[in-house]
Amino acid sequence: MLDFAIIGGGPAGLAAGLYASRGGLKEVAMFEPGMPGGQITQSSEIENYPGQLEVVSGMDLMESWLPQATRFGMRHEMDEVARITRREDGTFLLTMVSGKTHEALSVLVATGSVPKMAGFAGEKEFLGRGVSTCATCDGFFYKGKEVAVIGGGDTAIEEALYLADLASKVYVIHRRDAFRAPPAMVDRLKARENVELVMEAKPAEVCGDQSGVTGLKVTLKDGSERDLPVPGVFIFVGRIVRNNALLQEGGHYLCETTEWGEVKVDLRMHTDVAGLFAAGDVREHAPKQVVCAASDGVIAALEAIAYINEEKAKNEGN
Amino acid sequence: MLDFAIIGGGPAGLAAGLYASRGGLKEVAMFEPGMPGGQITQSSEIENYPGQLEVVSGMDLMESWLPQATRFGMRHEMDEVARITRREDGTFLLTMVSGKTHEALSVLVATGSVPKMAGFAGEKEFLGRGVSTCATCDGFFYKGKEVAVIGGGDTAIEEALYLADLASKVYVIHRRDAFRAPPAMVDRLKARENVELVMEAKPAEVCGDQSGVTGLKVTLKDGSERDLPVPGVFIFVGRIVRNNALLQEGGHYLCETTEWGEVKVDLRMHTDVAGLFAAGDVREHAPKQVVCAASDGVIAALEAIAYINEEKAKNEGN
Repeated sequence: MLDFAIIGGGPAGLAAGLYASRGGLKEVAMFEPGMPGGQITQSSEIENYPGQLEVVSGMDLMESWLPQATRFGMRHEMDEVARITRREDGTFLLTMVSGKTHEALSVLVATGSVPKMAGFAGEKEFLGRGVSTCATCDGFFYKGKEVAVIGGGDTAIEEALYLADLASKVYVIHRRDAFRAPPAMVDRLKARENVELVMEAKPAEVCGDQSGVTGLKVTLKDGSERDLPVPGVFIFVGRIVRNNALLQEGGHYLCETTEWGEVKVDLRMHTDVAGLFAAGDVREHAPKQVVCAASDGVIAALEAIAYINEEKAKNEGN
Repeated sequence: MLDFAIIGGGPAGLAAGLYASRGGLKEVAMFEPGMPGGQITQSSEIENYPGQLEVVSGMDLMESWLPQATRFGMRHEMDEVARITRREDGTFLLTMVSGKTHEALSVLVATGSVPKMAGFAGEKEFLGRGVSTCATCDGFFYKGKEVAVIGGGDTAIEEALYLADLASKVYVIHRRDAFRAPPAMVDRLKARENVELVMEAKPAEVCGDQSGVTGLKVTLKDGSERDLPVPGVFIFVGRIVRNNALLQEGGHYLCETTEWGEVKVDLRMHTDVAGLFAAGDVREHAPKQVVCAASDGVIAALEAIAYINEEKAKNEGN
């Protein structure tokens, strides 16, 4: 029986493992089938992790996190959890993709979310070299330069507004002729002098060279093409919340989620199921920053320790 | 007029300054009359800041935080805020201890909280060298060793339970003959084989040498003394929440607080006053860890940017 099963090996899972094992939990396992470190390992330049003064790659930033956690006894299992279920006695059963099972007194869901790509030529090739899915992370690198934003949802507009504070000009490329976001929000965007809306348009191809992106080709409604000479392209066409492991046989989720499938939590990272915690980009209102995911993981680990102590005392009382 | 006024220069304030200025806010000032870095600068060994693999002192850990924030334009003002008030137009007025004033569109309260000391001999001398006020931070350094816990409140019992998972023995020194904590919690403590309650007792003196603490002298009810040969002494006799700047003329606080004076926040670090945010140890349910305070600051900064964009658009609309 595991004390604490951590699903996901990004910053949230790794920080949770560090605090849970250093906090005295004996059986702490982190399930991550891929390389630990999370999505940030795909970023080439990080300059906003607090305390990390030199600009580093995501790979370099995360390199020390696994040894820091395993030093205190956390185990890394290179295995994928297919489903988490709660048993009658309040413990959890993890069914692995392989069919193998694990039992756990408490579980942290730290599986993250993945930005959707828009599907145009060059997009994946230039990801991290001019194509970005995070304005907070990368906006500053385009201070005083022109950027394009792809998307027309609430997030796209919010991020375009954020970028408008930094970039000299923001082109917003939207495939429809209107936005579905609240009118007040759309008005804020339209009021910005350095924002140009390119409606009923689709990105066709991002162009670039060895130094990165040099421009974006956009197909307009009439079939003609327009070249935008931008060094930065931001894609906000939705996210896939990686909540599959929470899906139960009846088609519902093990715990309460938002309409977008994000796990609902309180300030202490508790879900509405006792012993089940969530941390990082899989939870609602996640700021999608390494330091925030790490903090979530820390909080969840401390709460799991308190929860397990309570449960053990109850069982000893019986 | 400041865009964002940050009150307090610990991890929360510094991380907020980094993200707010890097996020494009022009006028960002952090008010900290002392040396920036916060309480953690008094700790001698940190091994649990995610990504910081080598053990470092608190001073060394925080050294890079101020230059990282000022690099993007945050200003550090060595001045102390006496009172924050909200004006009719929704902006804030900061009155400094000197009588000087500042105006701000948004404000972050990141003033922290300070652990109370118990007031026995040697306590301050050995703080950070065997005397601690944080089990999560320092408990692991006493793995397999004996420790004493001073205090009888809920926090003291929670922290004693946490330490009981790590230490070979935990002495709990309480001045009364009973605990006021919930009976179930007290029972959990009593059920631990490695916990000894030393009731109606007061710490008299912590003893030590250059290597740190070597023992604690305790005065018992009958006036006799008992020597506990512990290398670690944890003090949990309450905290002073540094919320003074929020106190208004009528004696109430500017925003909603808990019965302990901690600022109430939601997952996005909003208080119940628009444009006023809280982060770090001054807020409710704060885990009192550097990475968590930093995350709070980041969230508050991102929310302040969104808030200011909204307000500016409103004013332009008028």
